[in-house]
Amino acid sequence: MKSLNIGLIGTGYMGKCHALAWNAVSAVFGDVPRPRLAMLAEASQDLAEKKAHELGFARATGDWRSLVTDPEIDVVSITTPNAFHPEMAIAALEAGKHVWCEKPMATRLPDAERMLAAARASGKVPALGYNYIQNPIVRLIRRLIDEDRIGAVNHVRIEMDEDFMADPEELFYWKSEATSGHGALDDFGVHALSLIWTLFGGVRRVCGHMAKPYADRPVRDGGRRTVETYDIATTLIELDNGASGVIALNRSAWGRKGRIFVQLFGSKGSIVYDQERMNEVQLYTADGGKETQGFRTILTSPHHPPYDKFIPAPGHGLGFNDLKIIECRELIRRIEGDAAHLITFEDGIRIERTVDAIARSARSGAWVDVAAGEGGQAV
Amino acid sequence: MKSLNIGLIGTGYMGKCHALAWNAVSAVFGDVPRPRLAMLAEASQDLAEKKAHELGFARATGDWRSLVTDPEIDVVSITTPNAFHPEMAIAALEAGKHVWCEKPMATRLPDAERMLAAARASGKVPALGYNYIQNPIVRLIRRLIDEDRIGAVNHVRIEMDEDFMADPEELFYWKSEATSGHGALDDFGVHALSLIWTLFGGVRRVCGHMAKPYADRPVRDGGRRTVETYDIATTLIELDNGASGVIALNRSAWGRKGRIFVQLFGSKGSIVYDQERMNEVQLYTADGGKETQGFRTILTSPHHPPYDKFIPAPGHGLGFNDLKIIECRELIRRIEGDAAHLITFEDGIRIERTVDAIARSARSGAWVDVAAGEGGQAV
Amino acid sequence: MKSLNIGLIGTGYMGKCHALAWNAVSAVFGDVPRPRLAMLAEASQDLAEKKAHELGFARATGDWRSLVTDPEIDVVSITTPNAFHPEMAIAALEAGKHVWCEKPMATRLPDAERMLAAARASGKVPALGYNYIQNPIVRLIRRLIDEDRIGAVNHVRIEMDEDFMADPEELFYWKSEATSGHGALDDFGVHALSLIWTLFGGVRRVCGHMAKPYADRPVRDGGRRTVETYDIATTLIELDNGASGVIALNRSAWGRKGRIFVQLFGSKGSIVYDQERMNEVQLYTADGGKETQGFRTILTSPHHPPYDKFIPAPGHGLGFNDLKIIECRELIRRIEGDAAHLITFEDGIRIERTVDAIARSARSGAWVDVAAGEGGQAV
Amino acid sequence: MKSLNIGLIGTGYMGKCHALAWNAVSAVFGDVPRPRLAMLAEASQDLAEKKAHELGFARATGDWRSLVTDPEIDVVSITTPNAFHPEMAIAALEAGKHVWCEKPMATRLPDAERMLAAARASGKVPALGYNYIQNPIVRLIRRLIDEDRIGAVNHVRIEMDEDFMADPEELFYWKSEATSGHGALDDFGVHALSLIWTLFGGVRRVCGHMAKPYADRPVRDGGRRTVETYDIATTLIELDNGASGVIALNRSAWGRKGRIFVQLFGSKGSIVYDQERMNEVQLYTADGGKETQGFRTILTSPHHPPYDKFIPAPGHGLGFNDLKIIECRELIRRIEGDAAHLITFEDGIRIERTVDAIARSARSGAWVDVAAGEGGQAV
Repeated sequence: MKSLNIGLIGTGYMGKCHALAWNAVSAVFGDVPRPRLAMLAEASQDLAEKKAHELGFARATGDWRSLVTDPEIDVVSITTPNAFHPEMAIAALEAGKHVWCEKPMATRLPDAERMLAAARASGKVPALGYNYIQNPIVRLIRRLIDEDRIGAVNHVRIEMDEDFMADPEELFYWKSEATSGHGALDDFGVHALSLIWTLFGGVRRVCGHMAKPYADRPVRDGGRRTVETYDIATTLIELDNGASGVIALNRSAWGRKGRIFVQLFGSKGSIVYDQERMNEVQLYTADGGKETQGFRTILTSPHHPPYDKFIPAPGHGLGFNDLKIIECRELIRRIEGDAAHLITFEDGIRIERTVDAIARSARSGAWVDVAAGEGGQAV
Repeated sequence: MKSLNIGLIGTGYMGKCHALAWNAVSAVFGDVPRPRLAMLAEASQDLAEKKAHELGFARATGDWRSLVTDPEIDVVSITTPNAFHPEMAIAALEAGKHVWCEKPMATRLPDAERMLAAARASGKVPALGYNYIQNPIVRLIRRLIDEDRIGAVNHVRIEMDEDFMADPEELFYWKSEATSGHGALDDFGVHALSLIWTLFGGVRRVCGHMAKPYADRPVRDGGRRTVETYDIATTLIELDNGASGVIALNRSAWGRKGRIFVQLFGSKGSIVYDQERMNEVQLYTADGGKETQGFRTILTSPHHPPYDKFIPAPGHGLGFNDLKIIECRELIRRIEGDAAHLITFEDGIRIERTVDAIARSARSGAWVDVAAGEGGQAV
Repeated sequence: MKSLNIGLIGTGYMGKCHALAWNAVSAVFGDVPRPRLAMLAEASQDLAEKKAHELGFARATGDWRSLVTDPEIDVVSITTPNAFHPEMAIAALEAGKHVWCEKPMATRLPDAERMLAAARASGKVPALGYNYIQNPIVRLIRRLIDEDRIGAVNHVRIEMDEDFMADPEELFYWKSEATSGHGALDDFGVHALSLIWTLFGGVRRVCGHMAKPYADRPVRDGGRRTVETYDIATTLIELDNGASGVIALNRSAWGRKGRIFVQLFGSKGSIVYDQERMNEVQLYTADGGKETQGFRTILTSPHHPPYDKFIPAPGHGLGFNDLKIIECRELIRRIEGDAAHLITFEDGIRIERTVDAIARSARSGAWVDVAAGEGGQAV
Repeated sequence: MKSLNIGLIGTGYMGKCHALAWNAVSAVFGDVPRPRLAMLAEASQDLAEKKAHELGFARATGDWRSLVTDPEIDVVSITTPNAFHPEMAIAALEAGKHVWCEKPMATRLPDAERMLAAARASGKVPALGYNYIQNPIVRLIRRLIDEDRIGAVNHVRIEMDEDFMADPEELFYWKSEATSGHGALDDFGVHALSLIWTLFGGVRRVCGHMAKPYADRPVRDGGRRTVETYDIATTLIELDNGASGVIALNRSAWGRKGRIFVQLFGSKGSIVYDQERMNEVQLYTADGGKETQGFRTILTSPHHPPYDKFIPAPGHGLGFNDLKIIECRELIRRIEGDAAHLITFEDGIRIERTVDAIARSARSGAWVDVAAGEGGQAV
């Protein structure tokens, strides 16, 4: 396979994360041609050049359109604010590039549907950046479920909590504006749903509730402004496989920093996982003598691929940024035509539709069938 | 104050627990006259006499009615199966006895309402056995909230999980029959609601969902019988104080033994508690330097009354049975006319009405106002 | 078997704990005649009478000698300060009573040897109060070792830490005086050694080190007084069974409240236990697939006798005081002539000799053979 | 500052780790010229060329001597087996290169002393690879100590445990041969000592003990061979600052994967850290109300530099390999002439001498003064 030529748009947190992944993927995995970091686009030519040097890209541009149409480029990493995703992704796909776009697809469901249409038309790989599902622990969970280690899963609880909106005296900023979306629901909900999608498939029905912990927030020039988004969202769910559950999201949860707490209950055992301790998972199986049953804490190790590609010794720990390197390898695998552990636009639209259904449910106070929202029939 | 004369009905788990409490309360607290363990009632005279010796009661009877009307008796402990509570409690109250009845009040809401009426008419103390709220940790949580250590609580999550119904091949027994109630909802829900009641007061609105992990269970003589109750119940809630939240209950949760996991999120901090580690609580407060903020694990100690009455050294640990001794002291305090940390029939009926509202909500698939169920106006 | 008549000397923490145990043992276990709480001795007649009422004893005395010689008494609980143990225990044994004396045996090894001699001469049961070994978790550990679940144990680490001496500005009191003993070594070491004795047997060689975190402490009237005892003691050990290990003791360890942290490493697995979480133990076994090996957290349950006598449901938790009730039942078992899980004077002297060997080693800076101290040859 | 030209010798685990660090350091930190990955040396030209492509190096050689003398090279990363360190490091230093050599310095103390002499003569930066001290948590610990948050540290316990030698039926291999060193002592001890050095400085006196959990191991062709090294080493220590402590090392500790458990006790608080949960640290401070004191779990965040260079959000987690990127930045800082958080040969020799003193102590069974070993004066 030839080396891929990479174009990167955006150098914020996720842009840097993509750059690190493209820099490291060959060294870590050793089974893929070293990508050529060909071109970087930023808001200005100056910034682009500075960042290109830091991040190791050969060329720089202040015009993202010239990047997505550049003939040399094979893959475009899109890491700009969510509102730009549709225009950039569609342009790149139409220019015949593979796309690696950060989640969520878009800020409005119709835009996401247009992105999916463009991807289908292009025949190129349309990948979404969903870091958490790349944790080797999540693959282990999937394997344990597939191997029937905990039997049929009948109940699922997922919590995702951070505290960056927890201080009521933090200044009002765009995340409290209605134009930014619903709030915790779209900010966090897509992550929870990406895990459900990866482990179990789709969500059948939802009953959502959204709450504002603080009615208003201070503005810089004095006074206070009414908060328009919901920092808390809690949803009852029924999965396609029949399991019941709950998704609880809170971005004003003091003390929680990157908690994604997953509890899976099956007919033969249970699995518990917390992203804040991303290198361990807890497994309970109802076998062996009752006097020694208990949740066991499994530390990630070379027995949990692709941890072994990073570190040959167990218990040493991967970091959050390593998950992007894993995702990068999966993307390359998909471009090569192989099966890959990856959320594409085809999967992503299911997640977006579920978010939309939850929002409608929260407004109406009634259960909503997710499928009823497919094909654009519902709003 | 004179010694109270105690009558105990029932010697199962909770009967033994009451007996241990009456035996120990004076020795532990040292500020209350030693109760006289006067009379014990069981199903037969023989069993009653055997148990009276073991548990230290002076007299024994095979007829509970003779106990509740015995002139010597001051307080009646009722620890029989739930279905017997109304008849026994009403008889004891009508005979002018104080009552200490295990939760829940009754298996049907109208019976609970009749119990409340009898209690009001009697003027006696009508206490309910709700062990978990007696944990010194729960009092500490209440104190921390009252002292505004975590600010206004705006979101509450309570999970209660055990695994005694987790094995799908366990034989069908009465807990799977509809006559036993809804399932996890009444089995566990009252505990979760007792904590909410103790810490925050009432629940305003609920939206419940109940699920059966297993459609049927084997019966002894072969074949399988359809399960009629719901081992899982999950409920969105809004509290009277405006906080949102969720109550998640699962009695088929493999690996959970006595988990009651409480997460309280406030404007200045958070509190997390797990009954399986009943001697510790986690507190996060958003003060001090950000580089040292974190959930602190507080071990129970003499600084958390009435732990000090049991053990003068910190970190040594109370047990579940000790909570009953604490409740016993609170009951005596109430009988003495003092303020007490205790759930009475007046409080208990609020809990029962909330359970009823959740069950109606789960049936209808819509939100239900709890207050609408009061006084019989509701569906 | 007839009911035993109990005499109790002392009503401090351990006196109360003994009283609670004697009050509860019949109710909890249901297989032993209810003991008669016959007589209580305290420093004065008034105090004795007050406490006798609280704790449920029939008679009271201000003279402990009259208690130990009272013909009615069968068993004497000795819970006075350590310095009184030898005189009281020897008097009780010589009067033909069974003795239940709190640890340690004495403050000086020769006194402990005299106690042992008196016990041997009496033919009565000479039990020592060593609460921690009574934890059902410790019995489970012993069972797991006996069943070869972790193979041959080759390395043992035990830490015991509390923080009651951690504040350097606490006033000087008797625990800092040389007359009170060595410091952490005898204060805590006997507990660590009781666990080793229970699980593995004797200690062969020791190399100890003692340290003073604070050179002096304030005295009430101003100024400071030199600290004479060692709040920290750390000892390398070799057990009779060939295992190596370390015992680390610190009574000035801020944040530790009742930590006894035990790590046992064997050829097939490991066990980890922390008394601050006394209702759980961690077990690692090197079997099954490597991808799911991990330390499992086992919660105490009815599968861990005699937890079942206290609570029929798993995961609800015993408390520290419950351990004394268990010990009480073991004592009665021994008095009945049955095998019992109990540390007697015969065992206790081995513990005291090991403490003595460690102290000598710390002074000399060299390894000391524990056996060399037996029979009085050493000093 | 100009870009540094990098030469790498070795491409095993640590070689890959160095390569990843050199690839990422500019992208992560953004304040350093992107290093030029100039040349890679491996055992053969073919392997060197394959690895050079994977890891991003421009040139390749099968002869490490040509690398260390190549005029283009500024810095040489040495990641070969320990026995090669002295020859390579000395050659590189003599050729005027900066050196970044993995720990330990050498397998024999005199070789390490020669390396130090070469470094002093060269005037170049002689850095050692000691990953664990680069954890932002360790810097936070150092900062907390410096800010007197836990007062004067008077007791230190460090455990380092893994289980790669735990299976007695694993085939005999070179780690059980005496030529490989002492065993756990040098394998792990240098890590523990690097933490002590970083946090407190030197060790004054030691009293060591080494043990073999298994007397022999199977060999491939049948039969068993006697184990010559010690998989367990336990050492009593006194630090230069007067603190006492213990270092416990075990490479046959079933279930421990990368545990480095650090407990620091001070006059005002305590700190506890476990490398297996490398993104959190526990802090106890004896301030505030006693009812809310407890160990707080601090998750790494941008408030703990240089975590912020990797991830702008708290609680997301660094991995083991990220520590090397941090070390790489420190090395560049030192080459630039700035103060750096780095263990050089000057520091490393102190660690090696302490290991040597412990080994001598374990042989003699007596305490050994570490300083007595300096300059070869010692036993």
